[in-house]
Amino acid sequence: MVYVALISYTPDPERTIAAAARVSTSAVGASELVEKLTQEAVNRLIDRLISSGHLSPLEHASFTFAIEGISRVTSHQLVRHRMASYTQQSQRYVSLREFNYITPATISAKGELEAKYHQTVDDAYRLYLEMLDAGIPAEDARYVLPGAAETRLVMTMNARELIHVCSLRLCLKAQWEIVELFEKVKAEVEKVAPRLGAELKAKCYRLGYCDEAESCGIFPTAAEIAGKES
Amino acid sequence: MVYVALISYTPDPERTIAAAARVSTSAVGASELVEKLTQEAVNRLIDRLISSGHLSPLEHASFTFAIEGISRVTSHQLVRHRMASYTQQSQRYVSLREFNYITPATISAKGELEAKYHQTVDDAYRLYLEMLDAGIPAEDARYVLPGAAETRLVMTMNARELIHVCSLRLCLKAQWEIVELFEKVKAEVEKVAPRLGAELKAKCYRLGYCDEAESCGIFPTAAEIAGKES
Amino acid sequence: MVYVALISYTPDPERTIAAAARVSTSAVGASELVEKLTQEAVNRLIDRLISSGHLSPLEHASFTFAIEGISRVTSHQLVRHRMASYTQQSQRYVSLREFNYITPATISAKGELEAKYHQTVDDAYRLYLEMLDAGIPAEDARYVLPGAAETRLVMTMNARELIHVCSLRLCLKAQWEIVELFEKVKAEVEKVAPRLGAELKAKCYRLGYCDEAESCGIFPTAAEIAGKES
Amino acid sequence: MVYVALISYTPDPERTIAAAARVSTSAVGASELVEKLTQEAVNRLIDRLISSGHLSPLEHASFTFAIEGISRVTSHQLVRHRMASYTQQSQRYVSLREFNYITPATISAKGELEAKYHQTVDDAYRLYLEMLDAGIPAEDARYVLPGAAETRLVMTMNARELIHVCSLRLCLKAQWEIVELFEKVKAEVEKVAPRLGAELKAKCYRLGYCDEAESCGIFPTAAEIAGKES
Repeated sequence: MVYVALISYTPDPERTIAAAARVSTSAVGASELVEKLTQEAVNRLIDRLISSGHLSPLEHASFTFAIEGISRVTSHQLVRHRMASYTQQSQRYVSLREFNYITPATISAKGELEAKYHQTVDDAYRLYLEMLDAGIPAEDARYVLPGAAETRLVMTMNARELIHVCSLRLCLKAQWEIVELFEKVKAEVEKVAPRLGAELKAKCYRLGYCDEAESCGIFPTAAEIAGKES
Repeated sequence: MVYVALISYTPDPERTIAAAARVSTSAVGASELVEKLTQEAVNRLIDRLISSGHLSPLEHASFTFAIEGISRVTSHQLVRHRMASYTQQSQRYVSLREFNYITPATISAKGELEAKYHQTVDDAYRLYLEMLDAGIPAEDARYVLPGAAETRLVMTMNARELIHVCSLRLCLKAQWEIVELFEKVKAEVEKVAPRLGAELKAKCYRLGYCDEAESCGIFPTAAEIAGKES
Repeated sequence: MVYVALISYTPDPERTIAAAARVSTSAVGASELVEKLTQEAVNRLIDRLISSGHLSPLEHASFTFAIEGISRVTSHQLVRHRMASYTQQSQRYVSLREFNYITPATISAKGELEAKYHQTVDDAYRLYLEMLDAGIPAEDARYVLPGAAETRLVMTMNARELIHVCSLRLCLKAQWEIVELFEKVKAEVEKVAPRLGAELKAKCYRLGYCDEAESCGIFPTAAEIAGKES
Repeated sequence: MVYVALISYTPDPERTIAAAARVSTSAVGASELVEKLTQEAVNRLIDRLISSGHLSPLEHASFTFAIEGISRVTSHQLVRHRMASYTQQSQRYVSLREFNYITPATISAKGELEAKYHQTVDDAYRLYLEMLDAGIPAEDARYVLPGAAETRLVMTMNARELIHVCSLRLCLKAQWEIVELFEKVKAEVEKVAPRLGAELKAKCYRLGYCDEAESCGIFPTAAEIAGKES
């Protein structure tokens, strides 16, 4: 079960972004701006940054999350986003004396397969322990562990990258587990920065159409729109 | 005159880094670690990260600075550091109705040249204003302004990059103005994160020798050391 | 006058990108794919990458340009694009015994101002030389040089970043000198990679509207479109 | 078995780097420099860049590798290096009708465990196929596949990052499979750029000591050196 906790973040993230943004077109410095901006002015500035695509000031606010209960399948996808910082639990240095793993809902839904799935994963973990006891180093024994194995990590991302990653990973065509992860990331951001949190959404909401081969149904694809118009 | 103010930063930056670092070798999650670590344990962990070169956890703490009173000469160098976020006052959009500029000490030291320097810079600024009044857009009029012209910006850097940049820019062979800038950056970091602040130092302190062609005198060059030994 | 020469690039850049892209959905390896893909298949794959926003395979082809005859005003803007590599002529280490500079067309158009502009820039350069002769180091003497001063550099950018940067810098609302620079960059890319070269275009061609505050006239702004529809 | 093929690279990579480096301290442009530099001058320039830590010109040469026969355990580590581009075979979109996997030597060395390892991995793959046949999507069925499962990818890295990554991953304390991978990467680079290839080596060769907790024996640790001296 994905667990996400915001353990640290740039205080007053929206105001920090807005003050930085104003520096580019203002004769006044940032220290002064931070204090003077009203929340209304902050919201208006963030609106304008996003609608005009001037996204770099959004980098001045960062968010650090503790993430647990995701599979290695998903963490492998996650760390492909390079504009972020990750520190992940190592399967080389940590011998897993306790073992948790993810079961996809499509498998849970089929009783007989589900039983085999648990059996197979348990067998793999039992062999992992047996190898550790026989002196195989953890870094080698782990080769037998399934992609389902849970991992934990700390991730820091700035607001610009969060908007970008959510545009891809809140798309319902993304892997269900990573969708779940970023829904929780969004919920955490919304608590402390509602204006920014509202910008964490699938790309189609910004495009006005679906750019995947097939739509989930929320928006028609570009091809479907072209079809209707003609 | 360089002015640097830390306007925002990851709260409790050293603890955040240490908790993230522990996640990689621990069976416990980050939320728990953040609360349990003593300052002593935090310092020990940061020591170990740096001495072993495991620097990525240092990325989880970011620092946002308001910087004013630096020349465009220096801001051009500064933004070459790409692992950081900058928002700079635009000479395209801001018409400089007030004008400040930097005078290098080597020029101030020579009375006659100094007078010519001020004269020449003032002439350039006067023409800038004349061009604005004649309807030349600010983005073109500024071509006449000298590299000495002051600028202001907001810069966000994480602790890993701060350590890297200071290793280069606190070297006394670096441009004097950027040395001054990062001395003030270091002073600001030291106030809120003394353990990290202590790591902001020229590369020679880490190498034990000077890797420039000629030394400033603090450490001998590698060639000088080799000479002495033979 | 901006001069751009493509001095090196990933050979067969479009095929390299297409082969890499196919690896993600294919049971065959990249070495085999590189040889087998027809140019038609290559074009089709690149079309699909771009229309679906799966841009990362475009990073596998890089282009290295020699750039000369741009002002420091423009190089300062240019190096703000951080997903690229730059090596620039240093005003610290190179004493400029020859001096070239840029004159914006809006200034050339006004005879009297133009004369003053040349006078002022020449005066600044004369003082620069005088300071060098008086023993002022080049790194300090340059503070008097104008933003108009020409510089040269080598820039390497991959195809993904070229597409992104051109989307911003071929916009006619961008600074005219950087527009000229990227028009020449585009022309160089077109010679060796016509399919990619065609993708180097202002953002409005992709959006179907102008997201600036005011349009240059090619596409209406989002606000203008909304106005017409209602 | 790790397979690495250099499928593309910046032609004449060392000359490209050297010409770019010279631009920073030269009054001549890069196009001219590329033609005039002798291989001896190229080598001398690259020596100086590396010994003085002026590494950014090394970014102008990129290398693109087809990599096959590595485990997902290793690809997960590999993609943590963020200054590079990767396109990896997807387990979401590719149903693995053929299955290869890695067996660590420490396991092969223990006959009985090895048999169990093959059995367990085979069982997992059989269940994977059974799930596919039952209509479970590949993206979910793969949760049962072990970290040992082979993957393939295309990786592009510039020379600066190759030097950095090899300094970490050619250390014999690194995971054996990633050591093997980068030994083959190094061999490929050496064929076309011997001067650069020689710089792909573990960090201890540069430091003169081992900065790991325990040495592999090639160099003593810093603590061991301090001990001997006192």
